[in-house]
Amino acid sequence: MVRTYELRTTKNGLFEITDQICGAIAESSVADGIAVVMVPHTTAGVTVFSFPDPLGFDDMNDEIGRLVPTRINFKHQHDTPQDAAGHIKSTLVGVSVSLIISEGKLLLGHSQAVYFFEFDGPRQRTFKVQIVSC
Amino acid sequence: MVRTYELRTTKNGLFEITDQICGAIAESSVADGIAVVMVPHTTAGVTVFSFPDPLGFDDMNDEIGRLVPTRINFKHQHDTPQDAAGHIKSTLVGVSVSLIISEGKLLLGHSQAVYFFEFDGPRQRTFKVQIVSC
Amino acid sequence: MVRTYELRTTKNGLFEITDQICGAIAESSVADGIAVVMVPHTTAGVTVFSFPDPLGFDDMNDEIGRLVPTRINFKHQHDTPQDAAGHIKSTLVGVSVSLIISEGKLLLGHSQAVYFFEFDGPRQRTFKVQIVSC
Repeated sequence: MVRTYELRTTKNGLFEITDQICGAIAESSVADGIAVVMVPHTTAGVTVFSFPDPLGFDDMNDEIGRLVPTRINFKHQHDTPQDAAGHIKSTLVGVSVSLIISEGKLLLGHSQAVYFFEFDGPRQRTFKVQIVSC
Repeated sequence: MVRTYELRTTKNGLFEITDQICGAIAESSVADGIAVVMVPHTTAGVTVFSFPDPLGFDDMNDEIGRLVPTRINFKHQHDTPQDAAGHIKSTLVGVSVSLIISEGKLLLGHSQAVYFFEFDGPRQRTFKVQIVSC
Repeated sequence: MVRTYELRTTKNGLFEITDQICGAIAESSVADGIAVVMVPHTTAGVTVFSFPDPLGFDDMNDEIGRLVPTRINFKHQHDTPQDAAGHIKSTLVGVSVSLIISEGKLLLGHSQAVYFFEFDGPRQRTFKVQIVSC
């Protein structure tokens, strides 16, 4: 039942995944329910963000980097500093989001789209979509 | 199945929406399940927060503004600086929350209530509630 | 239907609760669905985090404390400064998370586990798990 999607992140930042989620909903034939989108990675997240001004994506990536700088003195030394910072960002943004399915369609506001948020790119990534009917 | 509620935010900050969610649950007659509350806006969020000290709402609004200052040099210039900052806040707080329905009632801790979080007010706003049974 | 689990937090930081969630899923006999984990407290949260390097837990706790310092001049004076800061952290991290159940098991990435995040410990705490089938 769970659908898995692959994507290649070319850098840190937001990568739109709305189409894949809409596709999963269409295939499920669920008219009313919810879709849970989940990222099985510890240095990435999933979020709903505004798309009309693409420069806003840069601001979002800049701000999360300002809030959680990639510094060399994390206690975590298992991997790179970008990996250590990515774990923190992942908790702040979240690795799953619950979305509403209404009349067979993903319910989003007119300026909203769904994004995979890469904190340790570029990487080959996946995300999962589970759909539950009302 | 999805219920839509309107509210008028008079300023930035938290506006309680617990009653509307409880009403949606009562109308649904679902005894055990989950309720997904979703904000179809890109400069708002939804959160669960502590209500006993109303001054805590001011602290929450102050802190999110301190973490993501409304500055004039965002790359995003599609709208106002408050709009650009609101997109970032929206990702940090989140635009949807999954809550538990138990014995026909919304399950919350004794100090918890649910809030619409306005980042670009005052505005006429809506939020959506979807209910799924176990 | 909702399962309640108790835990004793010995300090601020992350306490793993993956086993309890997996137990709830096993007891439910649900093969495909979602599990909503919810914390009924206003100074705690729930998150998915990386476990291979345990020092990363310290970084996470340090960073949330750096982002929202426990200061004495919060407007909220209903309780301690740590309590006031905890409310803010709770909104940033979130008090609920939706996870995917696939083939009777909790779906997580190979480095992910689920954690109760204590912001005002040590405390006796609870968390709730609701399971919905597809």
